[in-house]
Amino acid sequence: MSSPLSHELIESIERLVGPAGLVRDPELMQGYLTDWRNAYQGLAALVVRPASTEALAAVVRLCHDAGVALVPQGGNTGLCGGSIPDASGRQVVLSLSRMKRIREIDLANETITVEAGVILQHLQEAASQAGRLFPLSLGAEGSCTVGGNLATNAGGTAVLRYGNMRELTLGLEVVLPDGRIWNGLRGLRKDNTGYDLKHLFIGSEGTLGIITAAVLKLFPATHSTATAWVALPSAQAAVDLIGHVRSLCADRLTGFEMMSRQSLAFVLEHVAGCSDPLDTPHPWYALIELRDTVPDAPLTQLLESGLSHAFEQGWVIDAVIASSQAQAAALWALREGISEAQNHEGPSLKHDISVPVSRIPEFIERTDRALQQDFPGVRIVSYGHMGDGNLHYNISKPVGHGDAPFKAQERAIMQVIYRMTSAFNGSISAEHGLGQAKPAAAAQFKDPLEIELMRAIKRTLDPAGLMNPGKVFASGLE
Amino acid sequence: MSSPLSHELIESIERLVGPAGLVRDPELMQGYLTDWRNAYQGLAALVVRPASTEALAAVVRLCHDAGVALVPQGGNTGLCGGSIPDASGRQVVLSLSRMKRIREIDLANETITVEAGVILQHLQEAASQAGRLFPLSLGAEGSCTVGGNLATNAGGTAVLRYGNMRELTLGLEVVLPDGRIWNGLRGLRKDNTGYDLKHLFIGSEGTLGIITAAVLKLFPATHSTATAWVALPSAQAAVDLIGHVRSLCADRLTGFEMMSRQSLAFVLEHVAGCSDPLDTPHPWYALIELRDTVPDAPLTQLLESGLSHAFEQGWVIDAVIASSQAQAAALWALREGISEAQNHEGPSLKHDISVPVSRIPEFIERTDRALQQDFPGVRIVSYGHMGDGNLHYNISKPVGHGDAPFKAQERAIMQVIYRMTSAFNGSISAEHGLGQAKPAAAAQFKDPLEIELMRAIKRTLDPAGLMNPGKVFASGLE
Repeated sequence: MSSPLSHELIESIERLVGPAGLVRDPELMQGYLTDWRNAYQGLAALVVRPASTEALAAVVRLCHDAGVALVPQGGNTGLCGGSIPDASGRQVVLSLSRMKRIREIDLANETITVEAGVILQHLQEAASQAGRLFPLSLGAEGSCTVGGNLATNAGGTAVLRYGNMRELTLGLEVVLPDGRIWNGLRGLRKDNTGYDLKHLFIGSEGTLGIITAAVLKLFPATHSTATAWVALPSAQAAVDLIGHVRSLCADRLTGFEMMSRQSLAFVLEHVAGCSDPLDTPHPWYALIELRDTVPDAPLTQLLESGLSHAFEQGWVIDAVIASSQAQAAALWALREGISEAQNHEGPSLKHDISVPVSRIPEFIERTDRALQQDFPGVRIVSYGHMGDGNLHYNISKPVGHGDAPFKAQERAIMQVIYRMTSAFNGSISAEHGLGQAKPAAAAQFKDPLEIELMRAIKRTLDPAGLMNPGKVFASGLE
Repeated sequence: MSSPLSHELIESIERLVGPAGLVRDPELMQGYLTDWRNAYQGLAALVVRPASTEALAAVVRLCHDAGVALVPQGGNTGLCGGSIPDASGRQVVLSLSRMKRIREIDLANETITVEAGVILQHLQEAASQAGRLFPLSLGAEGSCTVGGNLATNAGGTAVLRYGNMRELTLGLEVVLPDGRIWNGLRGLRKDNTGYDLKHLFIGSEGTLGIITAAVLKLFPATHSTATAWVALPSAQAAVDLIGHVRSLCADRLTGFEMMSRQSLAFVLEHVAGCSDPLDTPHPWYALIELRDTVPDAPLTQLLESGLSHAFEQGWVIDAVIASSQAQAAALWALREGISEAQNHEGPSLKHDISVPVSRIPEFIERTDRALQQDFPGVRIVSYGHMGDGNLHYNISKPVGHGDAPFKAQERAIMQVIYRMTSAFNGSISAEHGLGQAKPAAAAQFKDPLEIELMRAIKRTLDPAGLMNPGKVFASGLE
């Protein structure tokens, strides 16, 4: 429970961050109280925007001593409401948006040190200007921040090759719940001097401390690309195909997105300028991307050789290899249009799940069947990052049905999908985190011992329970 | 403090693990009380070798309830005494050596699930027989175990390309200090449902629980290799060279070992059958390895093109590209012979440190200078995994000096090296862990706040302090 904010405390905070670091005007506060989709709304006693780690730490110490709860906030593009305060109006939003310095690029160490408020796209651009690649890439990259990417261990389409945000991180600077600063900004690839604390904070959604800066890995820029759009007879064919392509190409394989015909059909219907790259419809598709650091690498040849074997095996029915950058972009637009296209069909019930790659076909078959049995006619839009076992398994209402009765089934549909995910030893939140949307589901489907260990760690690092309360954990820690 | 073992407790343990699971004969116990180098010796009340997770968990529960301390043990090949009990004779050694099942290989998920007692080489062979690569590779791979690799977050020569043991792990099964089993054996590449507990146990050297099994990543097997031995004018040239090779070749670069002339000189003098690949001596050398999944990939051509640019830049003085597997093996033997060769020159004071790659030249120059000033004539054998910033910076006595007076300087020499490492924001244990050898040094050179956080986590997960006491932390937790 957050204590009320005294006038004295507000004045003390203003002395630390200056007038530009405080937002109190109700209208100006609005942008900090809701997410980009307007799916979550909250209230706040104050929005504070410190410009430095030291100022932020001092604010955290003051709030800690006064018993005031804090909600760290980045670009507000999360899908689970992790950065939105509760309805009490007593929490303080701590925005990292003014901490956007790129502190250092060390080319010989292949690292970049950035503050948490740096926008992902700016980080990508800084890497690119230095002749390197920072590989994390998401739909929200134009507005999401590094701090949010770290707090939620962000994923995206390049995880297959480069890993999640966690794997891209070498060191962190963190302000602890009592306001002390842990300087773990080390650019080391090997350090075995005790417990690896950074992994506790990454993915903890601001519930253990506030990440203020990070040392991140850079990678060699790529200079060759090949992109293919492939029609598949079944989801199993996608499993067989990715196994073959990966064995052949290894880390040249930088993207392997699968999607169902239903996914493509919505895109073709609702997204302007899109057309089916193939003459006839097929049950499943894959979008495959190869990249290489070597200029003019024979990637098309490699892709053709991989696909030719796949044709023989019956894994592939038809395929198009992009002959230009524009054509490759058009193929990617089909994949990237799915989420928006589905919105035209009424509410989209989204489920961001993962299972072992080998079990995707069986998962889809059994879950599709269970849903059609209980909710006849629902349209299942399944697509995702095949190489990570990560499916966006989203549900639209049956044709001709109303939005309201469909929305009323949201929880029941979710239960079917999460129960099946759990039976496949999968995750009910592959890349979106828990935020305020999924703690109850996590408590239901995760091993209670694991939840107990998580709670023990939370109590140890944040005994007063003031760091982003109501997120990650289903109920209070009292 | 460990309680004495009662006769009843021993009988209860025997009922759980059977007679084959107990070692009480003092002679047979010897192998469990010292490491492979015989650098650490301890005593134990009992050695227990459970054959299953359930039996192990039951033993842990009994010992927990009786207040008996446990020392988990793998292949005993660690360099810091992490698996050796103390001198009290009251601790129980818990050997994982009978838990050596490969539980599952899931090719389509690119994972293998193994028990902690599996020997690394057997894991490599199982992967290879399945047409895959398990990339962790160490000198001790014929006897070290997966459990030990996980407990110490093992490194080696392939970290540059594939990461440490931590990066190779997707899921863990852990017996907690109170005997409960945490089943985190998930083969998922994306899972954002709370804190990532596995990273707490990896690298914790048995102080938080006992890792009994793991889901590990497999990689495509490689089918082409090129290996070069390169002479360099300076350590800075090695930094420039690896940057260039990495930009050009990206993940084809699977090895980049640097070594000083002193390192090679010892090998040429003491290791039978070794010869200098080049006609004249040079200050520094690098051993470079490229690999590719594609058969007959033009790696030699790529290496030549990279080296030709490096010659022009003055980074490389001379080079040999291996023309056969046998020649490549002979080049690797030069690198792998250093540690043994140095033993012929008397005591070798070993320091396993890391600094940012970019700072290696300055670190070497300043540390060499500081040592020669304080300890004139010491011979510095510096070599290591350049791409990880990981130097094995080992010291031999001056020519003509005795072993005893040199050994007496061990602590003073270590202080110079660790102080410098610390000044470069480096690590005093890059890949060997802390064990019982380095906790005091860690306490001296790490941020006290980080040690405090580690202790808080230790107290939370192991409040009775019965898991591998005396390791990682400099003094008891009382």
